[in-house]
Amino acid sequence: MKVLGIDLGGTNVSMGVVNEEGKIVKKLTIETRVSDGFESVVQRISKASLKLIESIGGIDGVGVGSPGSIEHEHGIVRFSPNFPDWIDVPLASELEKRIGVKVVVENDANAFVVGEKWFGSGKGYTDIIGITLGTGVGGGVISNGQLLRGSTGIGAELGHIVVEPNGYMCGCGNHGCLETIASATGISRLAKEWKERYPKSSLADFSAKSVMKAAQAKDPLGLKVLERVSTALGIALGNLIHIFNPQLIVIGGGVSRAGEVLLSAVKRRTRENVMRSFWGTYEIVLSDLVDDAGIYGAASMGFEEIKSQSLEEKGV
Amino acid sequence: MKVLGIDLGGTNVSMGVVNEEGKIVKKLTIETRVSDGFESVVQRISKASLKLIESIGGIDGVGVGSPGSIEHEHGIVRFSPNFPDWIDVPLASELEKRIGVKVVVENDANAFVVGEKWFGSGKGYTDIIGITLGTGVGGGVISNGQLLRGSTGIGAELGHIVVEPNGYMCGCGNHGCLETIASATGISRLAKEWKERYPKSSLADFSAKSVMKAAQAKDPLGLKVLERVSTALGIALGNLIHIFNPQLIVIGGGVSRAGEVLLSAVKRRTRENVMRSFWGTYEIVLSDLVDDAGIYGAASMGFEEIKSQSLEEKGV
Repeated sequence: MKVLGIDLGGTNVSMGVVNEEGKIVKKLTIETRVSDGFESVVQRISKASLKLIESIGGIDGVGVGSPGSIEHEHGIVRFSPNFPDWIDVPLASELEKRIGVKVVVENDANAFVVGEKWFGSGKGYTDIIGITLGTGVGGGVISNGQLLRGSTGIGAELGHIVVEPNGYMCGCGNHGCLETIASATGISRLAKEWKERYPKSSLADFSAKSVMKAAQAKDPLGLKVLERVSTALGIALGNLIHIFNPQLIVIGGGVSRAGEVLLSAVKRRTRENVMRSFWGTYEIVLSDLVDDAGIYGAASMGFEEIKSQSLEEKGV
Repeated sequence: MKVLGIDLGGTNVSMGVVNEEGKIVKKLTIETRVSDGFESVVQRISKASLKLIESIGGIDGVGVGSPGSIEHEHGIVRFSPNFPDWIDVPLASELEKRIGVKVVVENDANAFVVGEKWFGSGKGYTDIIGITLGTGVGGGVISNGQLLRGSTGIGAELGHIVVEPNGYMCGCGNHGCLETIASATGISRLAKEWKERYPKSSLADFSAKSVMKAAQAKDPLGLKVLERVSTALGIALGNLIHIFNPQLIVIGGGVSRAGEVLLSAVKRRTRENVMRSFWGTYEIVLSDLVDDAGIYGAASMGFEEIKSQSLEEKGV
């Protein structure tokens, strides 16, 4: 069985055909060109999909991971910060019409955690929390084997857990959300704001990547930022452990490429916040799907759909 | 159909026979006498149960709500702050042996939210969060119709969401948990600590009840404490709304008897923290089961069990 995973980003669309063993058998990236409008984006994605599908001789399903608020059942993008003029657009049906294969659409952070369950560290687990540290901070939760969507489908906004009450204003209108600190944007801002206080810092630039590299090299500014980021993540993950009692927390997104220096700090901070009865009940890991996590996540939604269809046919 | 609900408290055991319409047809309270030991407590609860059951002519199930960490599947109390010598005690089977009817045991805060679904404000809802403000702060979550238990059954510890990082030390070992502020204990402490600053306060005593009454009468110390309590609850509930996207949040426990003065402050604070896309998706109410919420919660677990048994028999 093979599924096409489409990772819809603001700049690029990454597409990959994934087989059941979790191998990406073919990959393709096209520009999103949001400014061309919904119709045009759908056209180009469909065209590229058909090319990809033809080249590998057919496909069993298509999954799309998209940022924003998604109505999964009907595959509608209600709104998305990356696509400001996409309001209630029927993405799944429009793609389906052109590609000729069942298409499912899911929020990208939800897709991320399902991808981890199918192809990543979450294999065999029923209770998994996924956090993506990118431009923003996204979240997905699998609890008792079920993806948490919430009553109107907009739940699992884990980036908007408050970790610094009265902290930085967040894009959501609140103050001190996890996203204001632990996103790439938040990390850059902290480094900029503190730079003056660390004249000996050898920080190359203010990108999250450089800041994390600096922390790894024990640069004082890098370490200072890392401390605040891991403290924030420690509070949020502590909350989530007490709420969901998960087996696994997987951290993904661009910032997670920082690796061990980030992971060990986050583990320590989280542990400080977790009550004794939860010790030993959870693991925290970095996603090892990294660059392809978006494709894997999107594809996993297609596999989920095929699985649920086949269970339905069997009358389960 | 009638179920006996047993609300196991540190001081008293409240017992009540509840029918499907949510009427308590008979009620009884006995002392817990924890110090007499597990055997003796079980004996006296069983004796009282049998008397109650006999007097109403039979029963269809028994549900027990107990504080602490409960292994629901086997009805075992792993540990409970109120019963320090109860470690891994088989409460359900010991009661079952004596009462002769299937007994289910659940954490009391979990039972609370299920009780709200069966008999309270949560009727007909699939996504409900219950928060009990008592000596501590308990939590229960129903998400997509399912009670959230977590991978090892100890989830939904909503009282340990951090709302004041670096705040008061909590019994759990962390700092600034919701419980340190919004529990009856937390409210009393705040009033005591601030008393000197409010010499004109006419606060009668430092009980949470008196503090909330003072707030209602616009006493400055009462209002000051209420502000901090509602700010803390606003942060926690904001987090929970972003995480679970619930239809309903029900606040119960002794502190909830404060009524409108508490509810309106909590609603306002929560609203300040919730992002626009969640506006209008949730309601916050106070439990109207109040004094009998424990009995209703315990009984609802018995009704749940009967329902799931009957579905199983039908092969669903």
